[in-house]
Amino acid sequence: MKDHDKVLLAHGGGGELSYRLIKDLLLPAFDNPVLKELDDAARLSSKNKRLAFSTDSYVVKPLFFPGGDIGKLAVCGTINDLAMVGAEPLYMSASLIIEEGFSLNTLKKVINSMERVARQTGIEIVTGDTKVVERGSLDRLFINTAGIGSIDADLDISGNNARVGDRIVISGTIGDHGIAVLSQREGFQFESKLMSDCAPLNNLVSRMVKESNNIHVLRDPTRGGVAAVLNEIAFQSEMEMLIEEKAIPVKDEVRAACEMLGLDPLHVPNEGRLIAFVAEKDAHSVLEAMRDDPLGKDAAIIGEVIGRNRPRVLLETLIGARRILFLPRGELLPRIC
Amino acid sequence: MKDHDKVLLAHGGGGELSYRLIKDLLLPAFDNPVLKELDDAARLSSKNKRLAFSTDSYVVKPLFFPGGDIGKLAVCGTINDLAMVGAEPLYMSASLIIEEGFSLNTLKKVINSMERVARQTGIEIVTGDTKVVERGSLDRLFINTAGIGSIDADLDISGNNARVGDRIVISGTIGDHGIAVLSQREGFQFESKLMSDCAPLNNLVSRMVKESNNIHVLRDPTRGGVAAVLNEIAFQSEMEMLIEEKAIPVKDEVRAACEMLGLDPLHVPNEGRLIAFVAEKDAHSVLEAMRDDPLGKDAAIIGEVIGRNRPRVLLETLIGARRILFLPRGELLPRIC
Repeated sequence: MKDHDKVLLAHGGGGELSYRLIKDLLLPAFDNPVLKELDDAARLSSKNKRLAFSTDSYVVKPLFFPGGDIGKLAVCGTINDLAMVGAEPLYMSASLIIEEGFSLNTLKKVINSMERVARQTGIEIVTGDTKVVERGSLDRLFINTAGIGSIDADLDISGNNARVGDRIVISGTIGDHGIAVLSQREGFQFESKLMSDCAPLNNLVSRMVKESNNIHVLRDPTRGGVAAVLNEIAFQSEMEMLIEEKAIPVKDEVRAACEMLGLDPLHVPNEGRLIAFVAEKDAHSVLEAMRDDPLGKDAAIIGEVIGRNRPRVLLETLIGARRILFLPRGELLPRIC
Repeated sequence: MKDHDKVLLAHGGGGELSYRLIKDLLLPAFDNPVLKELDDAARLSSKNKRLAFSTDSYVVKPLFFPGGDIGKLAVCGTINDLAMVGAEPLYMSASLIIEEGFSLNTLKKVINSMERVARQTGIEIVTGDTKVVERGSLDRLFINTAGIGSIDADLDISGNNARVGDRIVISGTIGDHGIAVLSQREGFQFESKLMSDCAPLNNLVSRMVKESNNIHVLRDPTRGGVAAVLNEIAFQSEMEMLIEEKAIPVKDEVRAACEMLGLDPLHVPNEGRLIAFVAEKDAHSVLEAMRDDPLGKDAAIIGEVIGRNRPRVLLETLIGARRILFLPRGELLPRIC
C-alpha cells in the first residue's frame, strides 16, 4: 500500500487534503443538495411536524463482519433509533474518526455501505465531520451518526407507555448480530454461515403503525440484548411483565455458540430486531403484518404485561420455572456495535 | 484511584452500570424533560421554522487547556456551526467514546463543562450515547456533538453568498485557541497566560443579524484557520478577495509562538471567532454592533471582495507585497479540536 492509499493526518487537518477527501469521496457518496451547500450546518425544512433526533457512536470490532460492517451498522442504528419512536427517518449526520494510516480503500467500502443503506431507506446524510488522529490513538475507525425524523401527530410510542395486558412481540430471532461479530472476531466456524441481523427497521415499523394505532412501545434490543430492553421498559412504565422463554426465536447456531461461550442469548445484542408492546386486541393483526415483511418473518409473541407498580421482568424458563430476568451486569460483549 | 472511580467496560455495556451512569451522571447534568424520556430518539417540536443541523467530533489533546476543555469545546463547536448559518441553537446530542480506565471524576468535570455552556446558551442536550472501548483502543476521551437550530425565514447566510464589494470582518484576535492548546501540550511558557478563545458565538451572531440583513456569509475559522476558511468561501462563491495582513488582530504571544514554531497565524485554528462578509453599506454598523459584545470587542475589517470568477485570496503583506494566500497543505496542528 502506497502513501496515497492511506489516510494521513492531513486528511483531518482542514486544509487541501481535507477538502479533497470531502470533494472526492464524501460528496459523491452522500450526494444531495443540502450536503452540497458545504456550510457549517445543514439547513432543513421541517413541514410543521414533530421531529425525532438521535445519535450513536459505533466502535464495532472487527469493522467487517458477516452481514454488515461499521458503515451499515452506523446508518441502520440511527435509523432504527428514530423508528423506535415511530419517526420516519429524514436527515442524518455522519462523523468519522480515523486512525492515521487507515486504508483509503477500506474507508471507501465503509462509506459506500453507509450510502447504500441511506439510499435504500431514503434518509439523507446532510452534514458531517472527519477527524484523523495519530497512529495508536484510536483503533482504526469509529463512526458517529445522528439523525432527525418526523413523527406523525397521532403517534405516541414511548418506553413509558406499556400497559397491563399488552402483548410483547419480537420481530425475529435473537442474538444473531452479537454472535456473528464475536465469531468473526474470535475466528469461530459454524457449519452454516451465521449473519448479523443488522438492518434498517423503518419499513417494518411503517407497516406496524399502519396496522394498529395501539402500539404503545417500540425498542430495538441492541447493547444488553432483550433482557436489558425489557428491564428498561419495565422501569420506565413501572410494569411487571412475564416472558415465555420457549416462545423466543433463537437460531440453533446462536444457541450453540452461547452455550459454548457461557452467554445467555437474552443478553446478546441485535441490530435489526425490535420489541413491540401492543394492546391485546391488536396483537395478532400486528404480528401478521410483521410477518409479511422480510425483516419480521420470524416475529413471535413472547410475553405480556401482567401487572403495574412492580417493575420487573419474570421469565418462565424452558423447564417451567419462573425467575426474575435481571438487567445484565458487567460488560458482556465489548465493541459489538 | 479505586476501581469504582474508573470508567469500566461495563459502563458502555448497556447493563446495570450503563444505566447508573445515565441516571447518576448524565441525566442530572443535562436535566430537561425531553432527555428524561429516555427513548431511543428525542422528540422535538419545530414551530414550523427552517432547521439547521450540524455535527462535529472532538479529539483535542490535552483534554484540558487554558480557557477550556474538550466538553466546552464540543458544545461551543456545534453551537457555532449552527450560528454560522444564522440559526438559533435549540437541541444537541452528545456522544462520548471513553477509554477503559478513564477517571470518572475527570469525566464529571467534562460533563459539567458541557452542561455549563448548554445552560448559558439555552441549547438543550436531548439525546446521547456512551461507548467505552478497551484500554489502548482510544486515547482517553473523544466527544461527538450534533445540533439542531432554527433559522428565521428571512435569513440567507451561506458560504455561497459572498458578493463583490462585501467587507470581510473578523470578530477578534486570531490563533489564540491553537497556540493555547499547543502550548499546554508541549509545555511552553508565556509571560502572560494565553487563553483559548473557545466560546459560543450565538449571541454575537444574534446582535449582528439584528443590526443588518445584509450579512451574506458567516464562518468560524477552526481547523486550517483563517486561510482555509477564506479559501473555502472564495471557491464556494467564486469570488476573489483581498486581505490586508496589517488589519488582522494577532496577540503578541501568538505572534511570538508562531515565529518560534514556524507557523503562520492565519493557519492556526480558532474556536470562538467568526468571519463575516457584510455588504459595504452595513459593514461599519455591523462592526460597531460586534464591538458591543464581549466576544467581538477586537472585531476588525480585514479585507474585501474585489472581483468575481477568479476564486482566490490575495494577501497584502505587512511589507506591502501582494501574494496568493493558499489553502493550507498538510497537517499543521493535529488534535487541536
